[in-house]
Amino acid sequence: SLLQELEECCATNVLLQGVRVLITAGPTREAIDPVRFLTNRSSGKMGYAVAQAAAKMGAEVILVSGHVALDCPPGVQRVITESAADMLKATCEYARQSHLFIATAAVADYTPVAVADRKIKKNADTLHLEMKRTVDILATIKQEYPNLFTVGFAAETHDLMAYARSKLERKGIDMIAANSVADGKAFDQPTNALEVVWQDGHYSLPEMDKHQLAEALMKLVAAQYNQRNTTG
Amino acid sequence: SLLQELEECCATNVLLQGVRVLITAGPTREAIDPVRFLTNRSSGKMGYAVAQAAAKMGAEVILVSGHVALDCPPGVQRVITESAADMLKATCEYARQSHLFIATAAVADYTPVAVADRKIKKNADTLHLEMKRTVDILATIKQEYPNLFTVGFAAETHDLMAYARSKLERKGIDMIAANSVADGKAFDQPTNALEVVWQDGHYSLPEMDKHQLAEALMKLVAAQYNQRNTTG
Repeated sequence: SLLQELEECCATNVLLQGVRVLITAGPTREAIDPVRFLTNRSSGKMGYAVAQAAAKMGAEVILVSGHVALDCPPGVQRVITESAADMLKATCEYARQSHLFIATAAVADYTPVAVADRKIKKNADTLHLEMKRTVDILATIKQEYPNLFTVGFAAETHDLMAYARSKLERKGIDMIAANSVADGKAFDQPTNALEVVWQDGHYSLPEMDKHQLAEALMKLVAAQYNQRNTTG
Repeated sequence: SLLQELEECCATNVLLQGVRVLITAGPTREAIDPVRFLTNRSSGKMGYAVAQAAAKMGAEVILVSGHVALDCPPGVQRVITESAADMLKATCEYARQSHLFIATAAVADYTPVAVADRKIKKNADTLHLEMKRTVDILATIKQEYPNLFTVGFAAETHDLMAYARSKLERKGIDMIAANSVADGKAFDQPTNALEVVWQDGHYSLPEMDKHQLAEALMKLVAAQYNQRNTTG
């Protein structure tokens, strides 16, 4: 009935009322020289949809984003960052005041050891690019703010569920949403599917529009978050 | 006078009437694995403005473009490409039927020796990326079509003019338009400045809107192109 729908809608609207949600989204850019950089195929669509869904559920949302071709969702405060190091810095800053952290960004795992301050000339037939690991944003946040309810994302080409479960335990985080990026799936597409995993549960969200998917995911996240905060 | 302006305008409209112009624009993407790639800060704005200016001058324009956030200019036929190798293939294909070739694209000079077919895992503290030279599009086109009137672009952080003149001679092309990318200049900006160099001449176009600049450049190009085709 209309009343029922209205009740459901209202109930959704307050699921994250007063909750400060920090979300990272999009790709990072690791400079090789002033012109060239390393990046990835993340469009930021999923993260932006998650930010929009959280705002609709009454949350105060901060979106720490890499460079994307998307507008900031209504009611969301956005901070644009460049490299993994920049994103780490902004995320740490906003984590202090947040209740819930959702890491959807496709952060570079490696960054060049040295950045050339001039454009590298193409004199040599080969170029050896030496890269070092970046600082893990999720692990750093977890260490600095162990009680922050944290949701990670995983994009994998193979062994999705096994990898998601292992990442959940290894990182000591609360939930993981894993998607398949095999055969160009997920990246820059309007639809996606997610395997959502937590300590004592699991839910498969089938392929659907990223906005619908983000709303379904955020209901699962809100349920786990509210359960911990009422029972814990 | 109005008549004079009208005459000038009409004269501009037919400067490249019946000339088939091939233009490359934007960055290329060199895949490291299914997720990560190497690219550069080219927005494609200058190349798209050049394509639009050429179309306005009556040319039939083919635009071979990398991934950019720009719409195809009116009256221009666009072909989207991914890597330097893809762009080379498309460019060679369309060069056969072209009279004038303008290479504005920021093509990768290096590409990974091997592309991983799965996402590279971040197990190691360091990653050595071995890269090899890509095939030079300008040089290949010049070799295959030695009589094609060819204009190159150069983006440099230092020694602009010296580099432009040396590139003109080394590549054996007809004209070079060089711009400075020091301190983030030119890339993804609405304005730009160009040093235009040819065998027996040189012209400095001061900083202005990229659309105005493209029109000024195309007048210089049309003048040289038409001079060669009437005297040659």
